[in-house]
Amino acid sequence: MDRLVEAIRRFDNPSVVGLDPTTALLPAPLLAQARDTAGATNTIKGRALWAASVAAQFVDFNQSVINAVKDIVPAVKVQIAMYEALGPVGVSAYVETCRAANQAGLYVIGDIKRGDIGSTAAAYASHLSGIPCPDSEISTSATEKELRSFPWYEDSVTVNPYLGSDGIMPFVDAAQQSDKDIFVLVRTSNPSSDEFQELITDDNRRVYEQVADKVVQWGSDTVGEQGFSRVGAVVGATHPSVGASLRARMPQAMFLIPGYGAQGGTASDVAAMFDVHGEGAIVNSSRGIIGAWRTDPACNSQLSVEDALQLVGKHARRAALDMRDSLNTALKERS
Amino acid sequence: MDRLVEAIRRFDNPSVVGLDPTTALLPAPLLAQARDTAGATNTIKGRALWAASVAAQFVDFNQSVINAVKDIVPAVKVQIAMYEALGPVGVSAYVETCRAANQAGLYVIGDIKRGDIGSTAAAYASHLSGIPCPDSEISTSATEKELRSFPWYEDSVTVNPYLGSDGIMPFVDAAQQSDKDIFVLVRTSNPSSDEFQELITDDNRRVYEQVADKVVQWGSDTVGEQGFSRVGAVVGATHPSVGASLRARMPQAMFLIPGYGAQGGTASDVAAMFDVHGEGAIVNSSRGIIGAWRTDPACNSQLSVEDALQLVGKHARRAALDMRDSLNTALKERS
Repeated sequence: MDRLVEAIRRFDNPSVVGLDPTTALLPAPLLAQARDTAGATNTIKGRALWAASVAAQFVDFNQSVINAVKDIVPAVKVQIAMYEALGPVGVSAYVETCRAANQAGLYVIGDIKRGDIGSTAAAYASHLSGIPCPDSEISTSATEKELRSFPWYEDSVTVNPYLGSDGIMPFVDAAQQSDKDIFVLVRTSNPSSDEFQELITDDNRRVYEQVADKVVQWGSDTVGEQGFSRVGAVVGATHPSVGASLRARMPQAMFLIPGYGAQGGTASDVAAMFDVHGEGAIVNSSRGIIGAWRTDPACNSQLSVEDALQLVGKHARRAALDMRDSLNTALKERS
Repeated sequence: MDRLVEAIRRFDNPSVVGLDPTTALLPAPLLAQARDTAGATNTIKGRALWAASVAAQFVDFNQSVINAVKDIVPAVKVQIAMYEALGPVGVSAYVETCRAANQAGLYVIGDIKRGDIGSTAAAYASHLSGIPCPDSEISTSATEKELRSFPWYEDSVTVNPYLGSDGIMPFVDAAQQSDKDIFVLVRTSNPSSDEFQELITDDNRRVYEQVADKVVQWGSDTVGEQGFSRVGAVVGATHPSVGASLRARMPQAMFLIPGYGAQGGTASDVAAMFDVHGEGAIVNSSRGIIGAWRTDPACNSQLSVEDALQLVGKHARRAALDMRDSLNTALKERS
């Protein structure tokens, strides 16, 4: 987790921009261009063209955001579901987005929430270790690093713990071998997350606390120079008191905190999830940043695609700076 | 779930063939062809060619299995992780496989184990409802059905329950609208699945029982003519007594049972997970069927690709017939 911790320090900014585009978040000129390219969408051919053109718009949209924030934020989180909804062409747009962020020097969190067992988990862990290729010739270490990034360009991924250790350890091994990280879902930000995560078990720990204790165990052999293990935890901004107690429970786990902004979490809610040094957590905002252009009446259907993308970037940068300042103020104001 | 129940009856076969190829399961002539196509794999270009050629071999391999079993089994389960390991080109091979199985008349279970919250879960539910396309023109119902199958061609998908109801209901809604189904992970077959699933909660239910009770609730409005809801349950063959009690607990849930064969579950282990009519469950075997060719010394590197694929199909068919007969015998022998 050293690379992420160092990037957060470098930018003095513990926030991550969520690149989770939807058609509702595309400015009208981009959406119109996608419609023009696709033509009628009530045939398979039309629907395939629609998917391809929306995917292409997502990549351009994301590139504008990346260009606008790359010198002020340490990381992006890319939610694969938004791309996978478009089929394989969407998955290609996902990797193009991750690659663009990687090339801009950003730490890339692949929000994939994968989880499976044994050899299947190992297959998913290729997100971190690259395409499996038995008996490949030995490479120089520079190429080896490139090969471990291709084709996904993710520095870390989110994983689901429901299947237990043998669903997680293949990811930990891949992370360790490839200088990458994982974030395990511990306490998610959504309303019904309490249904299973908050259940009290017979030793008085809640299910999410049992998961948290495993997170500590899974990461124990992977603590880096900055004091954090390669196994981080997803803890929702919507549960501030839980987050504070989890902070104490998992002192060496970096927290990835969703649910800030649009989902209701505030800067003071999340401040308690940082450690005494004001470190150990990174807060995600998606719509609040990539959708900030929507407050600007100038961004209407009369604009060119290029001008609309410029406005997207301008507002994303402003929103990202506001978020950085809000978080840093809340961290300073902690008593 | 009517379509699956009817297909099982039609073939008198409650088993599903797992199309989970790996390079270790490809006969030598196919692997050699992939290597020849790729050339040196220690560059990005070589690795990309390797991924594309392995993906193409997976599709041919799967097509041979599909051709060999399509008149004796009702369904296939396609494990997306094995394809996703190859990157976007692998995801394309996954949809080609699902499409080939769909065109052969098989019921396709997409083993994707996705799970996320709210709008993100809705994005993943596009696996069942097709590419989201706001304001698309109204179509004829025939085309509407086609559009809901494109591009994934899955009749059902597996989903992870850790995030609770708002991670599941978008899939239930999509299933209901598209005449498709889901299978929720309840009690998985892997060794460490007990770490969280077997925890005893303060009302004396175990976590997997809490999930099972939610499965009943999530599916309650979707019970079909054959008596099963659209919300099935994944219950591992490696937990026979748990499976039997879950059968009573979820009478209207179809069980998808992994862990048969290579993972240790036997026909008599799984027989107790069927209802009194010998219905309500479908048992998966992957390696036991698609890897059955490995026992044949004739399948060596001297064969042509075409002959190797023929042997793959021949042995898959024999293994699938053996499995069908073993399951039916075990069901008849229940006292």
